[in-house]
Amino acid sequence: MHHIGKNNIKYFMSTIFYHDNGWKQLSDTIVEKSYSSVFVLVDQNTKSHCLSHFDQHFSHPYTLLTMDAGEANKHIETCEHLWSSLSEQGADRNSLLLNLGGGVVTDLGGFVACTYKRGIDFINIPTSLLAMVDASVGGKTGVDFQGLKNQIGIIREPAFVVIDDSFLTTLPSNEFRSGYAEMLKHGLIADADYFLDLATEQLDVVNSPISNHIRHSVEIKRKVVSEDPYEKGLRKILNYGHTLGHAIETHFLNHPAAQHLLHGEAIAIGMVMEAELSYRTTNLSIEERDQIKAVFSSIFDSISFDDSDRSAIKALLKHDKKNESSEIRFVLLKAIGSAVIDCLVSEEDIDAAFRFYAD
Amino acid sequence: MHHIGKNNIKYFMSTIFYHDNGWKQLSDTIVEKSYSSVFVLVDQNTKSHCLSHFDQHFSHPYTLLTMDAGEANKHIETCEHLWSSLSEQGADRNSLLLNLGGGVVTDLGGFVACTYKRGIDFINIPTSLLAMVDASVGGKTGVDFQGLKNQIGIIREPAFVVIDDSFLTTLPSNEFRSGYAEMLKHGLIADADYFLDLATEQLDVVNSPISNHIRHSVEIKRKVVSEDPYEKGLRKILNYGHTLGHAIETHFLNHPAAQHLLHGEAIAIGMVMEAELSYRTTNLSIEERDQIKAVFSSIFDSISFDDSDRSAIKALLKHDKKNESSEIRFVLLKAIGSAVIDCLVSEEDIDAAFRFYAD
Repeated sequence: MHHIGKNNIKYFMSTIFYHDNGWKQLSDTIVEKSYSSVFVLVDQNTKSHCLSHFDQHFSHPYTLLTMDAGEANKHIETCEHLWSSLSEQGADRNSLLLNLGGGVVTDLGGFVACTYKRGIDFINIPTSLLAMVDASVGGKTGVDFQGLKNQIGIIREPAFVVIDDSFLTTLPSNEFRSGYAEMLKHGLIADADYFLDLATEQLDVVNSPISNHIRHSVEIKRKVVSEDPYEKGLRKILNYGHTLGHAIETHFLNHPAAQHLLHGEAIAIGMVMEAELSYRTTNLSIEERDQIKAVFSSIFDSISFDDSDRSAIKALLKHDKKNESSEIRFVLLKAIGSAVIDCLVSEEDIDAAFRFYAD
Repeated sequence: MHHIGKNNIKYFMSTIFYHDNGWKQLSDTIVEKSYSSVFVLVDQNTKSHCLSHFDQHFSHPYTLLTMDAGEANKHIETCEHLWSSLSEQGADRNSLLLNLGGGVVTDLGGFVACTYKRGIDFINIPTSLLAMVDASVGGKTGVDFQGLKNQIGIIREPAFVVIDDSFLTTLPSNEFRSGYAEMLKHGLIADADYFLDLATEQLDVVNSPISNHIRHSVEIKRKVVSEDPYEKGLRKILNYGHTLGHAIETHFLNHPAAQHLLHGEAIAIGMVMEAELSYRTTNLSIEERDQIKAVFSSIFDSISFDDSDRSAIKALLKHDKKNESSEIRFVLLKAIGSAVIDCLVSEEDIDAAFRFYAD
């Protein structure tokens, strides 16, 4: 699927292959493209928990690259370290990078691949639920910079993506919930029935029929991205919960002594708060607003914010890269399943949203 | 002009606007696109020598960004400094970056723009002859990394390019010759008559009818790039003289105590040496080989290499990003005006090329 976007470049959308079909595609591609060398990027977590499963399905020789795990290491110095390793180990323009990990690994590894010798092929193998349903689609590569999330990066899709939900069996439950939050978001912005299914089923990491839901979330995101890959309009709906969520995530990332919030945990808070903004601005009904809060409260622990947290988060809102000039624009809901972009809200509304979340 | 390239992304080729038409296009675009803010990147040289001419033609408000001049500053730390300045000064996704300078400014500024908040628009205004005839076409953005030229970057064309040869009146003569070397290369690889014209006319910076030659060089490069934007085949012919030339340039860049060579000065040496390789490998005639040497000798001073220079340069050849695996491939000439890609040469041939240059 192709669309004209920024600079009139046609957008290439990766195919996503699932399970055995994905592993077969990977082997076939390695043979067909005769890459000069293959590198596999992991972090310590995916090295411990995912590499053995990968090795069962991948028989081609490769060189392992390891980065430190976590959002705190998603910065340009990690890229420099990896560029340097690739260079020292003779990676050339015809080398391939496989990113095996969560969103930090696939976002950062994608950026490293896109920029090394002006671009080598890369393939993503997401191992977290969040990376499977979110980072796997849309080509957003990059790193954080000076405390701002994803400030540096480019948009380019991998050659393709392999999704194998066997990786999820080793995923900690908070990481599972983090991905679940994005799936609920897909329902909130585009598919009310899907939101209700997910809310009712209360899936867990151990024994849930998650495969079909992953595919459904991927299809919702693909449809949105394919219509607006460079986020001029429609794609912004994927940012529901993210304007406040990113600011909250960044705030706690900058203050690691406080509490540690995963991406999905932060945007879960953002979605509850932005439900209140939607009630105040875009006529979301009280019933749906309260339903959204109830669903997230049943899955996520409540976080408390003090005055200094609130001030810092409001200051960060002004730096969110999705906001042009000094206005703060939100994606809000008219109803569950239906989103509106570019909504302006007042500081008073934001204060009310904090109160709604805390009540 | 569009072609399918890497990852099936259609390649967008910038339009190049000349002189008054270029300045008009620039003004019209600023009005039409209603950018949220405009930034102009210069180095100290273009700030002193080119900014006043720019200001005569550009009346929109802008914020000036300055970087240190020269290839030695074409590195990721300079990018970090500029990303930081953009961020502090509120650049958002709808900001525009104008790169006013030589190839270092346009290559590095292009990379900064492509990666800031995952890509903002940029327009190049090359001020050196080299940047007008070479960096202006083909979308190669990037920086040097750990002593290797252009190791990190991406391929993306600016929104468009403005070429105004009025800037050349302030260009030092060695910088002028550096661009002249690339123009001679365009003749050598694709247009024998053009090579002979340039060789005969011996243009200089002060009083030459250079405009038409700039356009002719730009057209040669555009034709090549449009047929193979991602350098899978044909585009490689633009690397004539560059395999040895880059290694020579990098060597002297890494040893600033030795001598300082501009890019074009280094590839002029590369073209003479690769004429000998062409004689030995692709049947370039003795007469044409000697003619090439005579033309470059009449324009460029001779450089001497000692044993340690030669060893270091040969070691660097193995790291040139254009070489896959450990083989060293050259673009060579069958005749003046006709190039062949992917030629393998022996170390003995390279030693002979050094001797030919020194004789």
